[in-house]
Amino acid sequence: MITAGIIGATGYVGVELVRLLLKHPSVNRLVLSSVSFEGQNIVDMYPNLRGVLDRKTDGLLVDADTVVAASEIVFTALPHGIAEQYAVTCLAQGKKLVDLSADFRFDEDEATFEQWYKKKYEFPAVHAQSVYGLPEMNREKIKKASVIGNPGCYVTAASLSLLPALAKGLVDPGMVIVDAKSGISGTGRNPTQTNHFAESGESFMPYNVGKHRHQPEIARNMTKVAKQEVNVIFTPHLLPMSRGIIATVYARLLAPAKIEEIHTLYEAHYRDEPFVRVLPVGSTATTRNVRMSNYCDISVHVVNGGTMLEVVAAIDNMVKGAAGQAVQNMNLLFGFDETAGIDDIPAAF
Amino acid sequence: MITAGIIGATGYVGVELVRLLLKHPSVNRLVLSSVSFEGQNIVDMYPNLRGVLDRKTDGLLVDADTVVAASEIVFTALPHGIAEQYAVTCLAQGKKLVDLSADFRFDEDEATFEQWYKKKYEFPAVHAQSVYGLPEMNREKIKKASVIGNPGCYVTAASLSLLPALAKGLVDPGMVIVDAKSGISGTGRNPTQTNHFAESGESFMPYNVGKHRHQPEIARNMTKVAKQEVNVIFTPHLLPMSRGIIATVYARLLAPAKIEEIHTLYEAHYRDEPFVRVLPVGSTATTRNVRMSNYCDISVHVVNGGTMLEVVAAIDNMVKGAAGQAVQNMNLLFGFDETAGIDDIPAAF
Amino acid sequence: MITAGIIGATGYVGVELVRLLLKHPSVNRLVLSSVSFEGQNIVDMYPNLRGVLDRKTDGLLVDADTVVAASEIVFTALPHGIAEQYAVTCLAQGKKLVDLSADFRFDEDEATFEQWYKKKYEFPAVHAQSVYGLPEMNREKIKKASVIGNPGCYVTAASLSLLPALAKGLVDPGMVIVDAKSGISGTGRNPTQTNHFAESGESFMPYNVGKHRHQPEIARNMTKVAKQEVNVIFTPHLLPMSRGIIATVYARLLAPAKIEEIHTLYEAHYRDEPFVRVLPVGSTATTRNVRMSNYCDISVHVVNGGTMLEVVAAIDNMVKGAAGQAVQNMNLLFGFDETAGIDDIPAAF
Amino acid sequence: MITAGIIGATGYVGVELVRLLLKHPSVNRLVLSSVSFEGQNIVDMYPNLRGVLDRKTDGLLVDADTVVAASEIVFTALPHGIAEQYAVTCLAQGKKLVDLSADFRFDEDEATFEQWYKKKYEFPAVHAQSVYGLPEMNREKIKKASVIGNPGCYVTAASLSLLPALAKGLVDPGMVIVDAKSGISGTGRNPTQTNHFAESGESFMPYNVGKHRHQPEIARNMTKVAKQEVNVIFTPHLLPMSRGIIATVYARLLAPAKIEEIHTLYEAHYRDEPFVRVLPVGSTATTRNVRMSNYCDISVHVVNGGTMLEVVAAIDNMVKGAAGQAVQNMNLLFGFDETAGIDDIPAAF
Repeated sequence: MITAGIIGATGYVGVELVRLLLKHPSVNRLVLSSVSFEGQNIVDMYPNLRGVLDRKTDGLLVDADTVVAASEIVFTALPHGIAEQYAVTCLAQGKKLVDLSADFRFDEDEATFEQWYKKKYEFPAVHAQSVYGLPEMNREKIKKASVIGNPGCYVTAASLSLLPALAKGLVDPGMVIVDAKSGISGTGRNPTQTNHFAESGESFMPYNVGKHRHQPEIARNMTKVAKQEVNVIFTPHLLPMSRGIIATVYARLLAPAKIEEIHTLYEAHYRDEPFVRVLPVGSTATTRNVRMSNYCDISVHVVNGGTMLEVVAAIDNMVKGAAGQAVQNMNLLFGFDETAGIDDIPAAF
Repeated sequence: MITAGIIGATGYVGVELVRLLLKHPSVNRLVLSSVSFEGQNIVDMYPNLRGVLDRKTDGLLVDADTVVAASEIVFTALPHGIAEQYAVTCLAQGKKLVDLSADFRFDEDEATFEQWYKKKYEFPAVHAQSVYGLPEMNREKIKKASVIGNPGCYVTAASLSLLPALAKGLVDPGMVIVDAKSGISGTGRNPTQTNHFAESGESFMPYNVGKHRHQPEIARNMTKVAKQEVNVIFTPHLLPMSRGIIATVYARLLAPAKIEEIHTLYEAHYRDEPFVRVLPVGSTATTRNVRMSNYCDISVHVVNGGTMLEVVAAIDNMVKGAAGQAVQNMNLLFGFDETAGIDDIPAAF
Repeated sequence: MITAGIIGATGYVGVELVRLLLKHPSVNRLVLSSVSFEGQNIVDMYPNLRGVLDRKTDGLLVDADTVVAASEIVFTALPHGIAEQYAVTCLAQGKKLVDLSADFRFDEDEATFEQWYKKKYEFPAVHAQSVYGLPEMNREKIKKASVIGNPGCYVTAASLSLLPALAKGLVDPGMVIVDAKSGISGTGRNPTQTNHFAESGESFMPYNVGKHRHQPEIARNMTKVAKQEVNVIFTPHLLPMSRGIIATVYARLLAPAKIEEIHTLYEAHYRDEPFVRVLPVGSTATTRNVRMSNYCDISVHVVNGGTMLEVVAAIDNMVKGAAGQAVQNMNLLFGFDETAGIDDIPAAF
Repeated sequence: MITAGIIGATGYVGVELVRLLLKHPSVNRLVLSSVSFEGQNIVDMYPNLRGVLDRKTDGLLVDADTVVAASEIVFTALPHGIAEQYAVTCLAQGKKLVDLSADFRFDEDEATFEQWYKKKYEFPAVHAQSVYGLPEMNREKIKKASVIGNPGCYVTAASLSLLPALAKGLVDPGMVIVDAKSGISGTGRNPTQTNHFAESGESFMPYNVGKHRHQPEIARNMTKVAKQEVNVIFTPHLLPMSRGIIATVYARLLAPAKIEEIHTLYEAHYRDEPFVRVLPVGSTATTRNVRMSNYCDISVHVVNGGTMLEVVAAIDNMVKGAAGQAVQNMNLLFGFDETAGIDDIPAAF
C-alpha cells in the first residue's frame, strides 16, 4: 500500500485522478494540493466527492511540497512547464512522478518541445531519465522508470489507431491524416467562451487547424514505431458532449489489402493488451462504449478498393486519455496489476 | 422607418435583439454599443452575423451616447442599475427606451427594488413615467409610454400561466407555487463554472432556492391581476439546454372545477393575444414547440380530484422572455403591427 | 459467492444490472435471458460489454426457466404483470427474487395496483410474502424476505426527500407537491418519438400530468411513514439528458421552522444510511454529483418566511432509482455488505 | 403567388419545408400529403405549427394526387424510388417538381443509382429532363428545368468545400478525403436505436464507413467540376446534436500554395453567391453560426508546409442541406428572388 499525491488536484485531470485513486486497491492514502485553492477542501469545489474522501484523505488542499514529502508517487496535473522542478525533487528523494502535462512527452527532444510550447527545459538532466508513458509502446521501459510523461489525449487515440500497421510497414509514411474529435472536458476546468454551454452545445467545429500541439507528439510516436519519418496531418474538433475522443485515421496502404488481413494483424498486435479492444470486422468504434473506462476501442476498415486503411479509435479523454492512463503507468511503476483501480465497465448509456 | 439603438449589444440579450431587429420591417438602421468591446466590430464576436449586418449597420461598436443621439428607440441590455441615466436622456430628447434589466420592472416601488437589487433609484422621477412591459397585462399603457421595463424571463412565463385564473378569482392567493426551469443562455454570455458545458451538460439542479430576484416581480404581477396579495413560492432550475423556459405552476382552486371550464376561460382570456397559444385539453406545453419564436404555449390541467389547477407555460427565454418581448413593446410604442419582426415560426426540431 | 440471474437482461434496467453485478464481489456467475433476443449474445446489442463479460458469463441470452434454475437470486426487469409467475417458482425453489417492475410495489393492495396498471394479481398469495424494497424504509423486513418489489425511480427520490419530516409530523399531510424531472433513459430502450434525440434534445416538457403511475406509490410510502393519509400531487418532466432524477418537493410546515432545525433532523435521520447524503445548509442537490452512483443527495430548504419546507432529492434514475437499489436489496437479502458492488464514486463531470 | 404542394409533409424534411414555405412571400397556399397520416392534421403531429398554418393551409393531410392537382410546384420528400411517378405527372401537367430523395441526383447515370440504391429507373425519360439542384454548380440549368434532384446533405457541404480548387485544377484528383459529421436530424423522423437520446447523446461515432450513398454523388460533383475523375473517400459520423453538418476536407495541392492565394480564389469564386460565406483567414467554420439558416460557411486552411489544402464547410443539414436548398431551387425555377423565404439570420446560440 502506498501514499499517492496529486499536485493540481482541482483541475479536471486532477479530480479525475482523485476519483480513480480513491478506488485503487493499493493506494491507502491521498494527499492533494492546489495553488489556487490551497487551504480549502476539495469537496467544496467538487460535491460529488462528499462522503467518499475519508476513505483515504481529509480533502484538505495543501501545498505542493507537503504532497511530495508525504507520497511514494506524485502526479502532477499542472499547466505545461511547471512539473520539472517536482521531478527533480522526486528523483532526489527516490520517489516516482507521473506528469500529465507535456513537460516529459518529448524526452530529450527539447527543440520540438520549445518550438510548440515556447519554453526551454530548465532541468535538462531529468529528461534523460524520463520515459514516455504510453504502455502499448513503452511498457517495459515504464516499469523501470521514475519519471513518466503521460501522453496527450488525442495522441493516445491517434497512436493506438496505427501502431500495428506502422510496425508492419503496411502504410505510406508520407501522409497520415488524423481527423480527431474531442469532448469539451478537454478544454479543462477554466470557463471560457469556447466551453460555455450556450456556445458549445448543439454546435461542432474544428480548431487549431494545422497547429495543434498534439501533432508533433503523434508524429514522433508514429515515427518511432515505423522506424522512419511519418508525416502527420492532424485536425482536432470540439464535440457537444463532455467526455470522449474519436480519432478517424486515414493511411494509404502500400499494397492493396483485405480487411480480414488487417483485422487479424490488429488482433494479434493487441492480443495481450488489457485496455485495447479490437472490434470485430463490421463494427465501428463509438465513444459511448468506452465512456468512464480505460478502454481504447479500435475498429479497422479498408476502403477505396482496398487501397486505404481507415482506423477509428475511441477513448474516454479523461481516463485512457489522461488520468486512467496515469494510473496504468503507476501500476506498471509499482508492479501492481496493470488494471488495478481502472477496471471500470463502461455503461450502455 | 426608424433607427434603433442597442446599448449592451454584445451580451446574449443584446445580440438576440440585433438578430430580431435586422429582420424588422420598420427598422432601417441599427446603432450598436458595448462598453467592453467599443471600437471592435460585433461580427468578430458573433460570426453568425457575417454578411447580414450591412442590411442595416456597419457592425461597429460605438459609445452609448452616440447610440442615443442616433436612435428613435434605445434598447438597454445592461447589468441592473445602469439604464436609468439613459432613460433620463431619452425622455429629455423625446425618444423611447426599452430596458431589459430590472431597473424599470418595479415602477415606483423602490423599496422592493432596493431590497432585491441592493441599489436605490438614482432618478426617481423617471420611474413615475415608466411602464411595465408585459403586453398581456399592460398593452394600452405601453402604447402611450416612453420608458418600458421589459419583464424578467421567468416572470413572463409564470405570469402568463396564471393571469386568467387570478383575474377571475378562481384560485387561493395564499399560496402559488412556481417551479420553473430555464435553459443555460439565461446565465448570460459571461463564462462561469455554472455554464461550463462539462458541468452543466447532462446535469440538472435548482438554484437560488427561495431567494431569486424574479420572485417579487412574479408576486407583484399576480397581485395586481388578482387585486389582492398573492403569495408566491418560486424555484428556478437550470436545464442542460441552451434556450427555453418552462414554468410548472400550482394553485389551489377555491371551488372544484372541471378542466373544460378552466380551458374555456383560458381560451377566452387569450383569444386576441397574438403570442399566447392555449393548447387543447390533453396537450402539454413543451419548450421545443416555441423555440426561436415569441410564442408562449400554455397547457392547463386540473388535478387532485378537481381541486388543484396546474398550468404549464413554455417560452423561449431569449425571445418572449427577453428580446422578442422588447421588440413587441417597441411595436406597441410605435404603432407597428404587434407581430412585426417577431413572427418566426418555431421549428419542429 | 452466488449465481445471479437476470430475466429481461437486454432492457436498460437489465443491462445496468449486468454492469453492476459484473463488479459485485460476491456474485461469481451471471445467467441472462431475454425474450426478444434469446439465442443471441448480449455483447452484440451492447458492445460496451466487450471483453468484460467473460469474468462471469458467456453472454448468451437463454430462456427464463434456465435462468431461474441456475440462480440463487433472480432479478426480473420486465414489463409490468409478468414477474409474478417467476416469484412463485422462486419461492417454491427457495430462491430470492427482486422484481424491478411494479408488480410487487403494492404488496397486498391489489385494488391500487389494478386501478393504475389495469391488471389483477394472478397469484395473490405471493404478494402476502413480498416486501417493498426501499431500504431506508424497510431494511429489516427486506433482510428476511424472499420476494422484493423494487421501488419506482421517481418514487425513490420523492420518498427519501420527505421521510424525516413526515416521520416527525412536521408537515401538513393535506398537500405535498412533488415536481420531478427525469433523464431520458427512464423511457426505456424502445425507441419512440419521445426519446428521439431530435425531439428530446434541447427541449423540456412535463408529461402524464396528474396521472403518472408513480403517484400512488409515492403517496402510499409517505402515508406509511406519516401514519396518516398524505395527499400527493406529482408531476413528472422529461430532461434533455440521459441519466438522473431530481424531485423538488414542497410541503407546508405545521409550525414555522428554521433551516438549521430541519437540517439537523435530516442529518440525524439519515446518519447511518450508506447512500443518502444530506448536503450542508446552503448547498443544492444536483444530478451530476450522483451520476453513475447509488447515492441520493438531499438538500433541505425552508422558504416563504419559515412556513414552507422545500426539499430537493437527486439520484441516478438507473442506479439508486433502479438497478443499484436492486443490488442494494440483494446485499440485504444475502447479508452482504450493503454497499458491495454499488460503491462507485460519482465523477465530477 | 403560387400554390406549393408537399408530398411527404410529415417527415423531418417535409415539415421543415412547411416551416419555410409558410414564410415564403410568393407562396400563398400550401397543400400537404402524407401516406402514413392521411386524413389527420399535421398540427397534431407537430404542435410547433399551431396557430401559424392558417396563413396558408388548413393543415389537413390529403392524398398525393390532390397535392399534384392543386399545386404549381410539388416537393417530394419521400423514401428513394417513389418520386419518379410524380415527376412524370408534373411534367405532363406543366408543373415543377423538386425531389428531395436521391431519385434525380444521378441524372441519366442509372447504373450508379442502381448500384447504390438497388433500384432501376422506372421512367428513364424523365431523368433526361431533370437537373441536379446545386445552385452553385447548375444555377442557369436549374432556372430552365422542370424537375430538380435536390442534393444530399453531406454532398452539399462536401461539394461546396472544394469547387473553387477543383475548378482551378489546384488539387490532386487522385485522393480527396471528406471526413463529415452530421447532427441526428439527418436520421429522419423514424425513431431507432441510433437516434435514441440515451444512445446518441454524449456519444459520437462514424457509420457506413466506406459505403455511404453520398460518396458517389460527391465524387460525381467533384468530377464534373474538375473535368477529370476525382477519387473521393467519404466517412460520415453522427454528432450528439440535432442540426448541422461539418465536412472537413483534405486535398493535396499540386503546387505548394499560400493561404492568402487560396483564400482569394475562394472569395472570388463565391463572391456572388448569396448563401456561401467564405470566412476570413484564421476563422474556422462552425455549425452554430449557420444553424437554422441557408448559409454554407467555408473556412480554408493550408497545412503541412503549404502542401495540403484543408477546407471546412458548415451547413444546417435541414436547411441548405435539404429544405432550404429546395426552396432556393424553387426560387430559381420561378424567377423569385433567390433568397426569398430563406433569409433567416442564424442566431448566436
